[in-house]
Amino acid sequence: MQFTAQDIAFVLNGTVEGDPLVTVNRLAKIEEGTPGSLTFLSNPKYEQHLYTTDASIAIVNSNLQLSAPVKATLIRVENAYSAFTILLEKYNTYKLHKEGIEQPSFIHETATLGENVYVGAFAYIGPGVKIGNNSKIYPHTYVGDNVTIGNDCTLFANVKVYFDCVLGNNVIIHSGAVIGSDGFGFAPNPDGTYTKIPQIGNVVLANDVEVGSNTTVDRATMGSTVLHNGVKLDNLVQIAHNVEIGANTVIAAQTGISGSTKLGENVLLGGQVGVVGHISLAKGTQAQAQSGIGKTIKEENTKVAGSPAFAYGSQMRSNIVIQRLPELEKRVNELEKIIAQLKAGE
Amino acid sequence: MQFTAQDIAFVLNGTVEGDPLVTVNRLAKIEEGTPGSLTFLSNPKYEQHLYTTDASIAIVNSNLQLSAPVKATLIRVENAYSAFTILLEKYNTYKLHKEGIEQPSFIHETATLGENVYVGAFAYIGPGVKIGNNSKIYPHTYVGDNVTIGNDCTLFANVKVYFDCVLGNNVIIHSGAVIGSDGFGFAPNPDGTYTKIPQIGNVVLANDVEVGSNTTVDRATMGSTVLHNGVKLDNLVQIAHNVEIGANTVIAAQTGISGSTKLGENVLLGGQVGVVGHISLAKGTQAQAQSGIGKTIKEENTKVAGSPAFAYGSQMRSNIVIQRLPELEKRVNELEKIIAQLKAGE
Amino acid sequence: MQFTAQDIAFVLNGTVEGDPLVTVNRLAKIEEGTPGSLTFLSNPKYEQHLYTTDASIAIVNSNLQLSAPVKATLIRVENAYSAFTILLEKYNTYKLHKEGIEQPSFIHETATLGENVYVGAFAYIGPGVKIGNNSKIYPHTYVGDNVTIGNDCTLFANVKVYFDCVLGNNVIIHSGAVIGSDGFGFAPNPDGTYTKIPQIGNVVLANDVEVGSNTTVDRATMGSTVLHNGVKLDNLVQIAHNVEIGANTVIAAQTGISGSTKLGENVLLGGQVGVVGHISLAKGTQAQAQSGIGKTIKEENTKVAGSPAFAYGSQMRSNIVIQRLPELEKRVNELEKIIAQLKAGE
Repeated sequence: MQFTAQDIAFVLNGTVEGDPLVTVNRLAKIEEGTPGSLTFLSNPKYEQHLYTTDASIAIVNSNLQLSAPVKATLIRVENAYSAFTILLEKYNTYKLHKEGIEQPSFIHETATLGENVYVGAFAYIGPGVKIGNNSKIYPHTYVGDNVTIGNDCTLFANVKVYFDCVLGNNVIIHSGAVIGSDGFGFAPNPDGTYTKIPQIGNVVLANDVEVGSNTTVDRATMGSTVLHNGVKLDNLVQIAHNVEIGANTVIAAQTGISGSTKLGENVLLGGQVGVVGHISLAKGTQAQAQSGIGKTIKEENTKVAGSPAFAYGSQMRSNIVIQRLPELEKRVNELEKIIAQLKAGE
Repeated sequence: MQFTAQDIAFVLNGTVEGDPLVTVNRLAKIEEGTPGSLTFLSNPKYEQHLYTTDASIAIVNSNLQLSAPVKATLIRVENAYSAFTILLEKYNTYKLHKEGIEQPSFIHETATLGENVYVGAFAYIGPGVKIGNNSKIYPHTYVGDNVTIGNDCTLFANVKVYFDCVLGNNVIIHSGAVIGSDGFGFAPNPDGTYTKIPQIGNVVLANDVEVGSNTTVDRATMGSTVLHNGVKLDNLVQIAHNVEIGANTVIAAQTGISGSTKLGENVLLGGQVGVVGHISLAKGTQAQAQSGIGKTIKEENTKVAGSPAFAYGSQMRSNIVIQRLPELEKRVNELEKIIAQLKAGE
Repeated sequence: MQFTAQDIAFVLNGTVEGDPLVTVNRLAKIEEGTPGSLTFLSNPKYEQHLYTTDASIAIVNSNLQLSAPVKATLIRVENAYSAFTILLEKYNTYKLHKEGIEQPSFIHETATLGENVYVGAFAYIGPGVKIGNNSKIYPHTYVGDNVTIGNDCTLFANVKVYFDCVLGNNVIIHSGAVIGSDGFGFAPNPDGTYTKIPQIGNVVLANDVEVGSNTTVDRATMGSTVLHNGVKLDNLVQIAHNVEIGANTVIAAQTGISGSTKLGENVLLGGQVGVVGHISLAKGTQAQAQSGIGKTIKEENTKVAGSPAFAYGSQMRSNIVIQRLPELEKRVNELEKIIAQLKAGE
């Protein structure tokens, strides 16, 4: 894919300064521009990079006044940032374009596929599966019995969705994620062994959910583990059985939510956070990376940190004193000595 | 799958009150019952839900006295909880029923399969593999050279078992788990680079082991990484090379055990726990979530918490004081001032 | 594979003491030797095991003086440790030997493969992919559009490499690892929802990189996420978008590096470490397991521990006092009482 400056100017309704026939095939930050790449300058703070960049084309604001010569061909547009975002989207759509049914793939005779669905080679679409329009099932992805997938979804290579799970529209799942594996439930026996508790529920991912690579979302024991609209999970996150996550909650990598816990809307959890089971976090709760949350948080927009987690500000102040603890202990030792002397001298 | 109340009553040796021909196709908790679902009431605490549930059928104890009208058809049995458990098991067995060899799959000519083995499409059974009776190998699962798998095992979609590993009977492995990848061993060179140490051992999973989704169990450098009978690992757990885990030990999600460490029987580790290498934990050790265990624990049934971990009770007491640390430091400041004044006034 | 003592002695240029026709088919540590296994004795500390081992063959130093009878056939060589290492390498090479193109596999007509490449069944090689000589692509591995893979690489079963990523020579990637999934980038909207930021960069793994099982390395937003020569990642590690990792840096299991952070050369991170985004760690930085690193470290070879992490030695001293905190608080209580009495008595 090669584009000339004049092609791009035409799309963006911009004007070309320099060679209109120079070509590019990729996008780059201005400080990382190399020949063949297209970049942009929006923030005046980075203007000096414009005079040194090796990018072949730079999109700039129409009112930019140059203070030195520029090697790159310029395309002047009203808003360089918006124009670049448009190109970014177009580039991404182009890169992720896939269509048709590759062979060999396995599509059970009882499965139903909407229009314009992509099925990669070695994908497995089980009995009773329903897939909406414009969804993409990449190679090696497994869609178990009776799974429902909405429109405009992307399941990248090697996603695994166990039986009976339900995905809404515009859901994105990255490679290696597992949706609907058994919840971790065992009943102890008197002899020290455990009996597995059947996990017969499912997982429901609502619209606009994104799930990161190698993240795991367990099915409910009964009922559903639910991620509401717009939930975003990073990589290697663990969501246990019967958890419910409110709309637009964002969870960073390697965080784990234990069984039956409920997160409100617009919660923000940093990386490597742990949340115990059977509690709830109010709307807008924020937790710093590596927090360990052991209790229900009722007040909205609470910020916590630490393990065990408590109020963010208090935790920061305690953290500072922790660094001075050996000194603090010495000071107490010293006080005790002085007091003993004072008492002796009374 | 639709069942009538009279079908179910027959199986459970119960008696029907209400419409014997009403049908259900799923199980639900009583507070989440919807039309078409079957539920149960065992604990009198939840009796009020019986009068409001939309479930079509409810299993109840034979001696239950109703205090209000009930919409659902009732099935009276001697023990409602046991009866429901029986249905749960049957439902689960039905849901997980798979048989036959799907195509395309790859079964090496030197592999031997027992009776009634399921092999899903795109499964790979390598040279020299032996699989016992009634085991299920789901789609996309990889069974490397010379692996041995016992009877009644389930390897869900996309499990990966490297060469030479050995699985006992009734082992369950969830999607994305990796058994037998190389231990993390490198010898440093004088120039700062590392030379890989060949990892030529294997992994042995004994009977009744369950491994969660995307969990990793590394092969031994030499010898075996061993999980004894009845060990249960949750999702995203890391077991390093040459680790040995005692029978009926249970490990929650995202916990990691470093190389050559030995865990006794019936150990319980919470989520996100870390255990350093080359130590041992006595039988019955319990560690709270996010603990960091750095030393051998010799006494059985010890409970620890914190990072670094120490006795659970002491850790809880220290955690409380940590929240008051800034105040404690101020009190010491104050004491020093007063003492200075007292000394000055001597 | 069975070898006689005289075969092995020939390869190692050693001399046989005992039955030259005894056969072995595996390697073992001396304390775990069983009939049919070959072991070695190098460290005199373990000499007593030589007289009790059930191994069939033991490699020993040529100058070893026996102090008791030995059951095993001995092979005397100049340096027993080096000789055993040679056998270990040979054994490993034998075990990991794979060649040819298994069927069914998917190799796009525009992909180019070097000489002596192994492609396992169900592997997917996308459009425009280039693979160098002697590389091995195991079953179920997905190589996305336009990926470049160098010579002598091994991608074990079910590795996933997204489009446009670049791998150098001698790269090893273990099962379930995901290279090039989208960075976790979302722009918040006024109504609480998020808009996905296209992630159009790639991942570059330089020569001699090893990536553990189920580890995830996200593609850059623009530009590249880069792992330089000789970087070794353990299992379940998370590397976020636009991270750069210096040569020969080693990262243990379940550690996570947040976006745009830069690690120097020869950094050593323990397991379950977290590093925040947009900081840098100097060459030779070492972090203890479960550290949480929140700030740039400028000084080379700094050692840190704790969450939040600070200097290793100070952290160890603070950790000790943390265990005594309840007692320390009581001592301050006591001092306050005494001071109050003293002041009252003034």
